[in-house]
Amino acid sequence: MKTPELTTQDQARLQQFLDQLHEDASVVLGYPSAQDFDYSSLHPFLGLQLNNVGDPFDDGTYKVDSRDFEREVLQEWAELVNAPEENWWGYVTNGGTEGNLYGLYLARELHPNSIVYFSQDTHYSVTKNLHFLNMRNIMIRSQPNGEIDYEDLYETLRVNRDVTPIIFANIGTTMTEAKDDIGRIKNMFADLAIGDYYIHSDAALCGAILPFMQEKANFDFADGAHSLAISGHKFIGSPIPCGIVLALQDNVNRIGRSIAYIGSMDTTVTGSRNGFTPLVLWHAMRRFGREGMRHRVQHCIALAEYAEQQLQNVGIPAWRNPGAITVVFPAAPAVLQDKWQLATANGISHIIVMPHIKREQIDSFVEDMRALRAQENPQ
Amino acid sequence: MKTPELTTQDQARLQQFLDQLHEDASVVLGYPSAQDFDYSSLHPFLGLQLNNVGDPFDDGTYKVDSRDFEREVLQEWAELVNAPEENWWGYVTNGGTEGNLYGLYLARELHPNSIVYFSQDTHYSVTKNLHFLNMRNIMIRSQPNGEIDYEDLYETLRVNRDVTPIIFANIGTTMTEAKDDIGRIKNMFADLAIGDYYIHSDAALCGAILPFMQEKANFDFADGAHSLAISGHKFIGSPIPCGIVLALQDNVNRIGRSIAYIGSMDTTVTGSRNGFTPLVLWHAMRRFGREGMRHRVQHCIALAEYAEQQLQNVGIPAWRNPGAITVVFPAAPAVLQDKWQLATANGISHIIVMPHIKREQIDSFVEDMRALRAQENPQ
Repeated sequence: MKTPELTTQDQARLQQFLDQLHEDASVVLGYPSAQDFDYSSLHPFLGLQLNNVGDPFDDGTYKVDSRDFEREVLQEWAELVNAPEENWWGYVTNGGTEGNLYGLYLARELHPNSIVYFSQDTHYSVTKNLHFLNMRNIMIRSQPNGEIDYEDLYETLRVNRDVTPIIFANIGTTMTEAKDDIGRIKNMFADLAIGDYYIHSDAALCGAILPFMQEKANFDFADGAHSLAISGHKFIGSPIPCGIVLALQDNVNRIGRSIAYIGSMDTTVTGSRNGFTPLVLWHAMRRFGREGMRHRVQHCIALAEYAEQQLQNVGIPAWRNPGAITVVFPAAPAVLQDKWQLATANGISHIIVMPHIKREQIDSFVEDMRALRAQENPQ
Repeated sequence: MKTPELTTQDQARLQQFLDQLHEDASVVLGYPSAQDFDYSSLHPFLGLQLNNVGDPFDDGTYKVDSRDFEREVLQEWAELVNAPEENWWGYVTNGGTEGNLYGLYLARELHPNSIVYFSQDTHYSVTKNLHFLNMRNIMIRSQPNGEIDYEDLYETLRVNRDVTPIIFANIGTTMTEAKDDIGRIKNMFADLAIGDYYIHSDAALCGAILPFMQEKANFDFADGAHSLAISGHKFIGSPIPCGIVLALQDNVNRIGRSIAYIGSMDTTVTGSRNGFTPLVLWHAMRRFGREGMRHRVQHCIALAEYAEQQLQNVGIPAWRNPGAITVVFPAAPAVLQDKWQLATANGISHIIVMPHIKREQIDSFVEDMRALRAQENPQ
């Protein structure tokens, strides 16, 4: 059968929409989506229907897949987050939510009698995941910088020592890019003689930043994580939401058995899986290399420092968490929230200095903030 | 920052991989992935990071999205599956699993004291979904054609009248494209005086076929479904797995409250959502129109009839369910399963006659089957 074409009218509508999007995208300062990419060499793959259905380490009957590339991507990131060499498993997900859902699912299967602990500043999708999975959970206070309140956590763990703790650690909270210190949390377990526990690192943003920093936070497998999720469309950059989830192979095998028991063969959350995004993530790492990623990280941190300074210079009490590319300040006026697409919650706004952000955009934003404040508070 | 390029070596590797894929894709007869598409007019959108984060009917702060197009796609399919005009909600998912997960989740929230009934021939992802969601469930026998055994279902419902039944109906099973008749199941409820129930239609394949047939099976909202999932990468055709899930707005609102209670604001399973696939589904429907879809369906059914006949002509007892584009026959020899990428289970193989399949491919496959049989059973 011959495939028909779009009408001229529909084509014109698409073009107009595309132009509008480019305009909108140029003023995104509030969302962590890297835009410094050009994946046009991959577009021909959209002529096919790639489907990495099932486990990335199995070869299925359906051959139109990119599992080879997916495995290379996983290998690269497993190394970067210090997964034990012969004891990791993972796959490319549709984004952060799926990676976290997988990590929590794994934790639940391993520890049916457990409580999940997570801070107040945790992304809203996590409570939904927990509700989905029917998991007992306790929300812990956050510190003003967005990091989990270790004292509250300690006290809560202490009174629930009869139930296995599952820690959902934020490695970069949504609003302030705060990182929970899983090394410190592990010490609590030792102190409380809690031998059985599980730690999942939600490293959506920072999982792609920290491996390239001199002084890294405690967040990865070397620091005690049992599973870890990274977003592909945040710091790495992808036109389509995607992510990487990694977990200890031993644990995956243990629940593999329970999955076989319930009559299911595959290990991933979704069955049919996007075969295009593994190519995107492969392309990014081949293009940048680790050295290029290090440069991107340095660039962003330097520019975030600059933005923080410039905002302070015009009288705005901006601040950053250590090593963060997120600059936090009191809620921006609504008109600027809208213009610069700033996420705002609980009285604070932020800008996130991603690799494609230019100094001129920061300057222009700071000038907008200054002008509006001057207008509102005339001297 | 300037974006580096791929090395010549990496580019060559991609090209080689692309050529290999085109070769592999040309011999897929066993998987329901339509290949008659050319979405190159959408490729420029991959220069951006579209993200339809959250509810498709809300306008978020992040403006780089394709929600307008997503809503048009949903509107079109809501009409096609007879969703009540002012009482439906839905979104574009990452594929069948997510749509089914959403439907089952909705059912669980509405009916906490419930049992899910599904047939033996149900896709393996469903038992995994049920396990995820911690839902009580009972597997019902299948008839030889893959349809649910109504007697077994009736008897099982009868002895469990104290618990709300949730029916997971297959509208096209994976192996034989059998369709459970939800009209008949509704009659059982009436007969057993069961007033409270929920029906989810997993119409991954047939949801995009049945609306374009003269005599349609009982599967949609008009027939009693409360939610329904359709795959986008099966009969419609998409380079990336995707799907549509639709549900009754009343029900979504009722659980909306419970989601607000657990502290979460959004209604979709995933948070960040692919903004490219709604464009793909929009493109497909604008390109084909309902008339074009009707032609595609007729073409596939006619060619499936032909394939069934040709296989019978060489002595293979091939058969089809009524109106099906799937032709079933005793398990093909391993070498042909591999060559033609045929899914095989429980002693049967199938080919699925998708719109891009040509008569010559059928002939070539039938000839392979004939030749191998002649070789194995020389006269």
